[in-house]
Amino acid sequence: MSIREEVVNQAKKAQSASRDLANLSAQKKNEALLRIATELEDSTAEILKINAEDMEKGRENNLSKALLDRLKLTEERINKMAQGLREIVQLEDPIGEIPRSWKLPNSLQVGRIRVPLGVVGIIYEARPNVTIDVAGLCLKAGNAVILRGGSNAFNSNQKLTEIISSSLKAVGLPENSVQLIQTTAREAVDVLLGLDDYLDVLIPRGGEGLINKGVRDSTVPAIQTGVGNCHVFVDSSADQQMALDIVDNAKTSRPAVCNAAESLLVHKEIASEFLPQLEELFADRVELRGCEATLDIIPDINEARPEDWGKEYLDYIMSVKIVDSLEEALNHIYNYGSMHSEAIITSDYNNANQFLEEVDAAAVYVNASTRFTDGGQFGLGAETGISTQKLHARGPMGLKELTTTKYIIRGKGQIRE
Amino acid sequence: MSIREEVVNQAKKAQSASRDLANLSAQKKNEALLRIATELEDSTAEILKINAEDMEKGRENNLSKALLDRLKLTEERINKMAQGLREIVQLEDPIGEIPRSWKLPNSLQVGRIRVPLGVVGIIYEARPNVTIDVAGLCLKAGNAVILRGGSNAFNSNQKLTEIISSSLKAVGLPENSVQLIQTTAREAVDVLLGLDDYLDVLIPRGGEGLINKGVRDSTVPAIQTGVGNCHVFVDSSADQQMALDIVDNAKTSRPAVCNAAESLLVHKEIASEFLPQLEELFADRVELRGCEATLDIIPDINEARPEDWGKEYLDYIMSVKIVDSLEEALNHIYNYGSMHSEAIITSDYNNANQFLEEVDAAAVYVNASTRFTDGGQFGLGAETGISTQKLHARGPMGLKELTTTKYIIRGKGQIRE
Repeated sequence: MSIREEVVNQAKKAQSASRDLANLSAQKKNEALLRIATELEDSTAEILKINAEDMEKGRENNLSKALLDRLKLTEERINKMAQGLREIVQLEDPIGEIPRSWKLPNSLQVGRIRVPLGVVGIIYEARPNVTIDVAGLCLKAGNAVILRGGSNAFNSNQKLTEIISSSLKAVGLPENSVQLIQTTAREAVDVLLGLDDYLDVLIPRGGEGLINKGVRDSTVPAIQTGVGNCHVFVDSSADQQMALDIVDNAKTSRPAVCNAAESLLVHKEIASEFLPQLEELFADRVELRGCEATLDIIPDINEARPEDWGKEYLDYIMSVKIVDSLEEALNHIYNYGSMHSEAIITSDYNNANQFLEEVDAAAVYVNASTRFTDGGQFGLGAETGISTQKLHARGPMGLKELTTTKYIIRGKGQIRE
Repeated sequence: MSIREEVVNQAKKAQSASRDLANLSAQKKNEALLRIATELEDSTAEILKINAEDMEKGRENNLSKALLDRLKLTEERINKMAQGLREIVQLEDPIGEIPRSWKLPNSLQVGRIRVPLGVVGIIYEARPNVTIDVAGLCLKAGNAVILRGGSNAFNSNQKLTEIISSSLKAVGLPENSVQLIQTTAREAVDVLLGLDDYLDVLIPRGGEGLINKGVRDSTVPAIQTGVGNCHVFVDSSADQQMALDIVDNAKTSRPAVCNAAESLLVHKEIASEFLPQLEELFADRVELRGCEATLDIIPDINEARPEDWGKEYLDYIMSVKIVDSLEEALNHIYNYGSMHSEAIITSDYNNANQFLEEVDAAAVYVNASTRFTDGGQFGLGAETGISTQKLHARGPMGLKELTTTKYIIRGKGQIRE
């Protein structure tokens, strides 16, 4: 079979499985999730052995330390995956909810009922735990899923999906509900992007290149995730200690993730007082790249180049710009932001409101760290990614974002006049 | 300026207008809509004169009678457009609604607030009233809109958008909030499909070719609308008179629209009793195309070819298939339906439920005509089209479907642990 035939074949099986999954009881779905959790734990030794092979190959291929860390599984990490599944069991089943139902003047009873999307495609990179998280969420929402994991984690992902399939089979669910693309060839991604006859949505997770490719080349409706060029704007009325704490947290608590701040905007009225404190705070920990006015105040840092304003560093680097006003900050964010997470630090009521109203992003903060943009933090449970687009889903995508609705209409013979 | 430059230029202006529109009060938006309504009525003579020129050209170009009728404006139709705008004024402003707000354990106040999409692109065909309907809905939802109307209606659309722009200017709204593409060249559509930097959503309305092009070639997130291969399934337990009334209504009350039924499925147990009545009812009004088993019962009709099952005739033609069971009907609809509107006529409780549960379509009916799938009929107000996709919007798209949400988070200095 060619790669195309193989992938199309999997997509057909997924579509067939999705019909069976659509009307399963929550009880049955939870039984499957619990079974997967147990089998994961029971297979710890095997999983670790196979993951060690991926790690070995990764070292041979000179993967960075950071990538190797993301690839690595440990007993603790496997337990955490199982725990994640048990948390999904606790989430309310979104399927079958009727958010609204009403009667028309002609007595037709019209309602919207929540139903699964159908078949979800996910393209992701090194972390094998995504395999379990995403499969769990998709199953709970009644969807079949096709996974395309990173090539470095292929064997680990293979083992994990085997465990899922055998668990599903054991409790009587279609084993093709969760399938991993069986080749690491790039062609498989291209094939997947064109399968609008079989896939209902595609979620590319990972680097900017992958996401853009997914969104631009896909004929399957795709959801843009994760690129975060997030700003913190320190207004003239800001509590400066609060601002330092928040900037530190937003930049350094986990710089490689999409909700980390990349750029700092400082109101000119407090810049000469605030920036030296920031320089001291970051010292050797964070490289600052400043605009001209910033360099006038803290001349020892690097100069920001024009391309710095649009960059998602994902590293211990932060660009710094002094702005004349809230309006200039808003315009800068409008021009360079990626519509992910944006924060203002202020004590001014009107400025707080204006920032909340006018910033067009998935999450807009007053006096809090951008790092909270996360399904778990928001109390939504696990997530399949953070949408930075406006259609269908915006911000952390939980169970509900893996569903759609349909109208159901109950009549007694009504016809339209 | 090249066509590309011209269209990009309009898109930039739209994006700039959309920033101003996003936070307008409902009062201001309603003032604009009422002003447009009045100016429309006041300009009736001028509009009719310009529309007569489009009609004249249409006749020269040998447009069909049906297309000419769709193109034609009359005093009554203009009044109806104005009336439509006044009805949109009555609809509740969706912007600013906070569907949910909650407090996290760390006292962060998190909420989702409804906001406009931004810039909406609409590609549509002959009917000039769409220009007004769609502009009114987009404005009420705080969006800027770029319209690409059919070439036959170019002058009429031009006049209507002039009236809109001058009305907007008169009440102090950005006149570029509603713009018509200023060329009838097809290239303009291709340019539009690639403007994901400026447009937030694209809604292609019209024929299947246009819709598929819009959905497959667009890098702007697109919403698939309107293709309707709708079925009526007459179950063995159906009230046959009810079934005849519904099939008649679904097929003949307006055959050229997407919610009209195209295909009839009849349970074998009642076929020999039901089909002769249907043949008599439709007589010379509707051409029936039947499966082999159907021809055994009513031999005077045409035979259905394999391609008939997937066809959206939009005409006085209906395909007829006899099925052995509800399951066969469900499979047939799964294979050939376009996920628009599907109906079962039955007196059986379990079959009604199973049909409602298992049919994957925007609107699923028991004992009612498919013709009700319509924003106005469902009580949602005017619509910008009927979505047959699952992401973002499904079924009739009203005001709410022209919006998105963002998270707003109010803190007191919280940082993530």
